[in-house]
Amino acid sequence: MFELKVVTRFAAAHQLKMVGAKCENLHGHNWKIEVYVGGKELNKAGVLVDFGEIKKYVAEIMQQIDHKFLNELELFNDNIPPSSENIALYIARALQDKIDGSIGDSVKVTRVAAWESEDACATYIAD
Amino acid sequence: MFELKVVTRFAAAHQLKMVGAKCENLHGHNWKIEVYVGGKELNKAGVLVDFGEIKKYVAEIMQQIDHKFLNELELFNDNIPPSSENIALYIARALQDKIDGSIGDSVKVTRVAAWESEDACATYIAD
Amino acid sequence: MFELKVVTRFAAAHQLKMVGAKCENLHGHNWKIEVYVGGKELNKAGVLVDFGEIKKYVAEIMQQIDHKFLNELELFNDNIPPSSENIALYIARALQDKIDGSIGDSVKVTRVAAWESEDACATYIAD
Repeated sequence: MFELKVVTRFAAAHQLKMVGAKCENLHGHNWKIEVYVGGKELNKAGVLVDFGEIKKYVAEIMQQIDHKFLNELELFNDNIPPSSENIALYIARALQDKIDGSIGDSVKVTRVAAWESEDACATYIAD
Repeated sequence: MFELKVVTRFAAAHQLKMVGAKCENLHGHNWKIEVYVGGKELNKAGVLVDFGEIKKYVAEIMQQIDHKFLNELELFNDNIPPSSENIALYIARALQDKIDGSIGDSVKVTRVAAWESEDACATYIAD
Repeated sequence: MFELKVVTRFAAAHQLKMVGAKCENLHGHNWKIEVYVGGKELNKAGVLVDFGEIKKYVAEIMQQIDHKFLNELELFNDNIPPSSENIALYIARALQDKIDGSIGDSVKVTRVAAWESEDACATYIAD
């Protein structure tokens, strides 16, 4: 199979209710996001899908979360705290929705990695 | 299992027939290539295979495509355009051939990633 | 599933008995280590496990090998030479032991990557 990876970034604030950990304080990160989409067949141009199309969708998703206080967004709540894990999950689902509505079944989001620092990354891996 | 990754780079020109996309123009990239080989057993030296051997084969393959206009090479044609996807696939097959002829069945190319920019990467993943 | 990746580094000397290769000479590297742990469920804080906890365990393991001559450690011997492959395997097992004794069954070490240079990485991938 083939897999495309697109890298982007966003900056935001968040706060997690983790007993005794410093993540409880309101803080923020420059997240680096790595989005992976996969499929079996290349099109006539020899590509899985135009990188530009994936980048466009990813940019639209980034607009929803960039320079925001994530805890205040409707996307997250006490049951879905804005951890890097849940940020990755949200991006994966939002991107899959956009792909389903345009490219179709041939391309699936396989994983989304959210680096909250240069040494710490949380990845959602689709089934 | 164990997997070795070797990173290399090459620069070349290419042109893709993608309706309405800027990739139709003759252009080029500094590709970063990540080659992965995997296997189950380590040898007596405690390694899957000497990195130097994989690097030598990868360097031979790079010589075929570095500083070339990829569309003019016999490796590619209208049915196999020199997209990053097909570049990754070509490198994977060429490296597997070299491994089959020297190291043998114990080491398989598992994937080849072709970064055409710092934010866009196409990977061929072997079955 | 979700996967966390933590990146760290250590510097050490080693020597490998590889016929005719330069790795036979006593030498050293600044290794970059990427540790991956995976699991299916997020906890109430919305995370797989606190990054801080994994970082603490990884730091403890690094203390055992950082600024050492690896061939002289009890961890390695003629049957388990201190190759990047065996370093990755050792870190994976040591980290899994620490996780088993604290976090429990829900989190598994999925892989450990040991970069011995910017262009060469050996990864142990757990079954």
